Amino acid sequence: QIGALLEEIHDEDLADLLGMLEEHEAALILKTLKPEEAAPIFERLDEDQQEALVEELGVENAAPIVSEMAADERTDLIEALPEEVGDNLLETLEKVDPEAAAEVEELAKWPEDSAGGLMTTDYVSVPPTITVAEAIERIRQSSQDAETIYYVYVLSDDDRLLGIVSLRDLLLAAPTDRITDVMTENIFALSPETDQEEVARKMAKYDFAAMPVVGPDRKLLGVITVDDVMDVLTQEQNEDLQRLAAVEPMAEGYFQTGFWTFIQKRAPWLAALLVSEFITGTVLRHYDEIIEAVSKLAYYVPMLISTGGNTGSQSSSLIIRGLAVGDVKPIDWKRVMVREVGQGVVLGLMLATIGMTRIYLWGDGFPLMFTVGFTLFFIVIMGCTVGSMLPLLLRKLGLDPATSSTPFIATLIDVLGILIYLNVAKLLLAEVIAQAAKTVH
Amino acid sequence: QIGALLEEIHDEDLADLLGMLEEHEAALILKTLKPEEAAPIFERLDEDQQEALVEELGVENAAPIVSEMAADERTDLIEALPEEVGDNLLETLEKVDPEAAAEVEELAKWPEDSAGGLMTTDYVSVPPTITVAEAIERIRQSSQDAETIYYVYVLSDDDRLLGIVSLRDLLLAAPTDRITDVMTENIFALSPETDQEEVARKMAKYDFAAMPVVGPDRKLLGVITVDDVMDVLTQEQNEDLQRLAAVEPMAEGYFQTGFWTFIQKRAPWLAALLVSEFITGTVLRHYDEIIEAVSKLAYYVPMLISTGGNTGSQSSSLIIRGLAVGDVKPIDWKRVMVREVGQGVVLGLMLATIGMTRIYLWGDGFPLMFTVGFTLFFIVIMGCTVGSMLPLLLRKLGLDPATSSTPFIATLIDVLGILIYLNVAKLLLAEVIAQAAKTVH
Ligand SMILES: [Mg+2]
Ligand SMILES: [Mg+2]
Ligand SMILES: [Mg+2]
Ligand SMILES: [Mg+2]
Ligand SMILES: [Mg+2]
Ligand SMILES: [Mg+2]
Ligand SMILES: [Mg+2]
Ligand SMILES: [Mg+2]
Ligand SMILES: [Mg+2]
Ligand SMILES: [Mg+2]
Ligand SMILES: [Mg+2]
Ligand SMILES: [Mg+2]
Ligand SMILES: [Mg+2]
Repeated sequence: QIGALLEEIHDEDLADLLGMLEEHEAALILKTLKPEEAAPIFERLDEDQQEALVEELGVENAAPIVSEMAADERTDLIEALPEEVGDNLLETLEKVDPEAAAEVEELAKWPEDSAGGLMTTDYVSVPPTITVAEAIERIRQSSQDAETIYYVYVLSDDDRLLGIVSLRDLLLAAPTDRITDVMTENIFALSPETDQEEVARKMAKYDFAAMPVVGPDRKLLGVITVDDVMDVLTQEQNEDLQRLAAVEPMAEGYFQTGFWTFIQKRAPWLAALLVSEFITGTVLRHYDEIIEAVSKLAYYVPMLISTGGNTGSQSSSLIIRGLAVGDVKPIDWKRVMVREVGQGVVLGLMLATIGMTRIYLWGDGFPLMFTVGFTLFFIVIMGCTVGSMLPLLLRKLGLDPATSSTPFIATLIDVLGILIYLNVAKLLLAEVIAQAAKTVH
Repeated sequence: QIGALLEEIHDEDLADLLGMLEEHEAALILKTLKPEEAAPIFERLDEDQQEALVEELGVENAAPIVSEMAADERTDLIEALPEEVGDNLLETLEKVDPEAAAEVEELAKWPEDSAGGLMTTDYVSVPPTITVAEAIERIRQSSQDAETIYYVYVLSDDDRLLGIVSLRDLLLAAPTDRITDVMTENIFALSPETDQEEVARKMAKYDFAAMPVVGPDRKLLGVITVDDVMDVLTQEQNEDLQRLAAVEPMAEGYFQTGFWTFIQKRAPWLAALLVSEFITGTVLRHYDEIIEAVSKLAYYVPMLISTGGNTGSQSSSLIIRGLAVGDVKPIDWKRVMVREVGQGVVLGLMLATIGMTRIYLWGDGFPLMFTVGFTLFFIVIMGCTVGSMLPLLLRKLGLDPATSSTPFIATLIDVLGILIYLNVAKLLLAEVIAQAAKTVH
C-alpha cells in the first residue's frame, strides 16, 4: 500500500522530503528501500546531501544504490565526492556491478562542462537488421533503464552510429518494416569535446529531446538528454550573471553557501578593482593645477564617469549576449565598431544636451558648460567603443567575455573619462586656469 | 526523389535555407510544397520573415499553410502580425479550417509570457474507459499532428483531466490493461496564468517533457512542451542580462536590430541615470568649503564610489539570482541583511587596509588616510546592504528585480558614498579645514 502511494509521488518530491530529514534517518530509509527504488530518489538529492549520505551509509551500503543510478548521475556523484571516498566507492562498485563501474570510468574521461560530461550510456540501441516490431520490443525491454526511449540508435557491429529512429516513426511504420528503411541517416551528432553551451544551443534550435555523442570513428559514446541540458542553461545563466557582477560563480543556493565562501568569491575581484581604480587618483593628481584653479570641475566627475560606465555596460551586455547566442563573432568587430560609434554619436549628443542644460541652470558659466558637454559626448562614444570591443577581444583570446568585463570596462572608462575631461577642460578653460594661477602665485 | 532528400533534412535547416532566399523565391517554394509539408518549415522562420512571407503570399495562399502549423505557433504568428493582416488571416482561416481558427481564438486569450501563452492544443487525449492497446492505437493515429506523444492525457466526458500516462508506461503495461490502472492521478498541472519563468522552473526541477495546463474546473486547456520552455529560458536570460545593464530587452539578434531601435532601447535609461547622477554634483557643491580646503579629497572620489558600486552589484546579482531560482524570498530580508552586513564588515576591513596602504605610500598624511579608510569600510557595508535590499524591495512591490537595478544601485551608492566621505572628512580633517579657512579669509 505504501508502495502504491510512493509510486504516485514524483521522485523529486521524495528527494525533497528525504533532504529535510536528519542524515541517519534518511540513510535508514534508503537502506529499507530496494536499491532500484532508492536510486532514483538518491539521484535527485543535492551533491552535498549525496556526499553526506554516502559517508553515513558507508561505501558497502551505498554501492548497490549507486549501481542503480543513471550512468551520468553516478559519474557526477563519484567525481564530486572527496577523492578518497570516490575511489573507495568505485572500487566497491567494481565488485558489486563491474559494468556500472566501467561506465563511470568511460564517462569520467570528459570534462564536466563538455558534451562528454553531460552524456549518459543509458540509451536504447538496435542493430540495423531487425524489424520495427522487434525494435519496439527492444524498447519495451530497456525502457526501465534507458534515460530516453524516444529515440533508438541504430548501431553497426562495431558500434558505429548508422542512424536514428524516433519512437514516433516506429509507431507510424508497419511492424514488418526494416529499421534501415525508417531510420534517419542524416544525424546531428556531437563530439564529446563540444562545450555544453554549444550543446544547449543546438538542442534548443532543433528541438531535440536527446542528441548522440560520437567519437572520431563515429562510434556512439553516449546520449545527452534535454532535462540535463535545461540545467545547463540555468547554470550558465547563473555563471554569466555572477561573472558580470565580478563574483566568482557559486554552485549552491544563497542560504546554502557558507560565509567564508562568499568572502572568498567576492574579495579577490573587489580588491583587484580597487587597485585598478587607484589609477583614477593618479590621473587626477597629475592634473592638480587645473582642479585647484577650477575646483567646480571636481563636482562633475562622478556624473561623467558613471555615464561612461553605464554606456559601456549597455554595449558590453549587448555584445556578450550576441556572442553567447552565436549572433556576433570576434571577426565582426569592424561592423560592430561602426554601429557602436554611430549609436555613441547620437546618444552622446542627447546626453550632452541634457547635461549642458543642467549646468546652465546651475549657473556655472559657458566655459564649464561646454567642457562638460564635450566630455559627455566623447565619453559616451568611448563607452560604446570600449564596451563593445573588450568582450570581442576577450573571446578572441579564448577567455570568457562575461568574466567581470562590466566592472573592468567601468574602471577603464573611469580612467579614460577623467583623462578626456581634464584635457577638454585644459583647452576650454585655459583662460580661467591662467587667471587662477596668477592669483595664487 | 527530392521528397526523400527533403525528408532527410531537418525542418530547421530548411527554414534557414528559405530565410536566405529572396521573399518572392521563398514564397514560390512554399506554394509549390503541399501545405502540410510547408507548415513545419514556415513555423521555424523568424517572426519578421513569417510576416514578410504572409504579405508576399497573400492571406489566401497563406491560410492553408497556417492551418497546418502547430496551434501554439499559429497563434503566435497571428498575434505577431500587424493587426489588420492578422484579423484578415484569421477570417480566411475560419473559412479554410474553422477548427484551426477556433484553436487560435482559445489560445490567444492568454498573455504571451504565461503558461496559457506557451501551451498548445495539439496533444493526445483518451477516455478512461479504453485499454492500453487502444491507447497506443490512438497515439499512432494522432502522432502526425501531436506536439508530444510521450504523454497521453486521460480526460473525462466533460474534458476534466483525470490522469496522465507516459508512452513508457504504456509500452511496459499489458495490452489488455485498463488505462485507469496504469495512469498517474497525482498530476502536476499548471494554471494558465502561471508566469513562464515559473513554468520553466517546474519543468526543469521535475524533468518533464511536457506539462498540462488546466482551468479552475480542472478542464484540460492545453499542454506545454519542453522545446518551447528551452526558448523561454534563453529569452528570460537575455532579458535579465539586458535589464541589468539598463537596456530595454530586444527580441532580435544584434545585427538584425535596427539603429533607431537601439537608440530607443538605450537612451531613456541613460538619460534617467544621468539625471539621477546630477545629485552627486549637488552634494559635492554643498560641501564645497571642505573640498576647497583639502582639494586632495577629490582625488579619491572615483575610487570610493566605484568600490561602493562594485560591492553593491555583487550583492544585488546574488540576490537577483536567488529570487529567480526561488531560493530567496522578500520575507527573508532580515536573514539576508544579517549575512550581508557581516560580509560587508569583513570585506570593508580588507579593502580599507589595501586603500590605506596605498594612501600611506602616496604620502597624503594620516588624517586623509584614515578618512579614506573609514569611508571605504562604511561604503562597502552600505554597498552590501543597499545592493541586497533593493532587489528584495522591487520584488515585494511586484516589479522585476532585474530592471536596471545594478545601475540605479550604483547611482544611489554614489550619492550615499559621497555623503559618508565628506562627513567623515569633516570630522577627521576638522583641524586642516579650519586652518585652510583661516588662510583664505
Ligand atoms: Mg562554460
Ligand atoms: Mg557528468
Ligand atoms: Mg526551439
Ligand atoms: Mg541524465
Ligand atoms: Mg538530471
Ligand atoms: Mg558561460
Ligand atoms: Mg560607477
Ligand atoms: Mg517574465
Ligand atoms: Mg503563444
Ligand atoms: Mg532537472
Ligand atoms: Mg510548440
Ligand atoms: Mg518552438
Ligand atoms: Mg525575467
